[in-house]
Amino acid sequence: MQLENIKCTPCQGGIPPMNESEAKQHLSQIPDWTLEEDATKLKRTFKFDNFVDALAFTNKIGDLCEQEGHHADMQVGWGYVKVFFQTHKIQGLHLNDFVMAAKVDALAR
Amino acid sequence: MQLENIKCTPCQGGIPPMNESEAKQHLSQIPDWTLEEDATKLKRTFKFDNFVDALAFTNKIGDLCEQEGHHADMQVGWGYVKVFFQTHKIQGLHLNDFVMAAKVDALAR
Repeated sequence: MQLENIKCTPCQGGIPPMNESEAKQHLSQIPDWTLEEDATKLKRTFKFDNFVDALAFTNKIGDLCEQEGHHADMQVGWGYVKVFFQTHKIQGLHLNDFVMAAKVDALAR
Repeated sequence: MQLENIKCTPCQGGIPPMNESEAKQHLSQIPDWTLEEDATKLKRTFKFDNFVDALAFTNKIGDLCEQEGHHADMQVGWGYVKVFFQTHKIQGLHLNDFVMAAKVDALAR
């Protein structure tokens, strides 16, 4: 199934984070994302021609995060948005993070 | 003069950044901000009870940055916004950065 079409499921913790090998397999569907910090986070940087467009994209991602109940950490400034996903309750990656990354890719298309 | 009431002036570079001693004097008007990375950046963290409020504050700062023509770098996620000011053309601090910090404080009041 396409990651982009999956709905995030609540994660209450109490499970181990996804291991690096499984994470790398999921990356094949979101090739513009990279694993950060021992495979505990996903990251992608988006470039823009100005500040306003970067902030507008931040808001689009914010709306998506609220809809899905799964929240990105973002860095935004003139011409860029860096997006990070991690499932904080397990201090690592969950399928939800890959789902969110794919949905962000869809927003950017 | 109150920093908050000063208008940012264009900085085209070609001047040295403010030194640490002068920067520390200006901090007295914006005591919630700290100097980062060898006094080349100003930083303040704001806390919120949810994601939506953090993003709304990010947008308020964004509007201010556009008005003043001086752009923050921000980190935003569930419950927080970290705001950084630096005058990128001189890779360090300019009075404009302190002016912007004071204006952000005013937004938060």
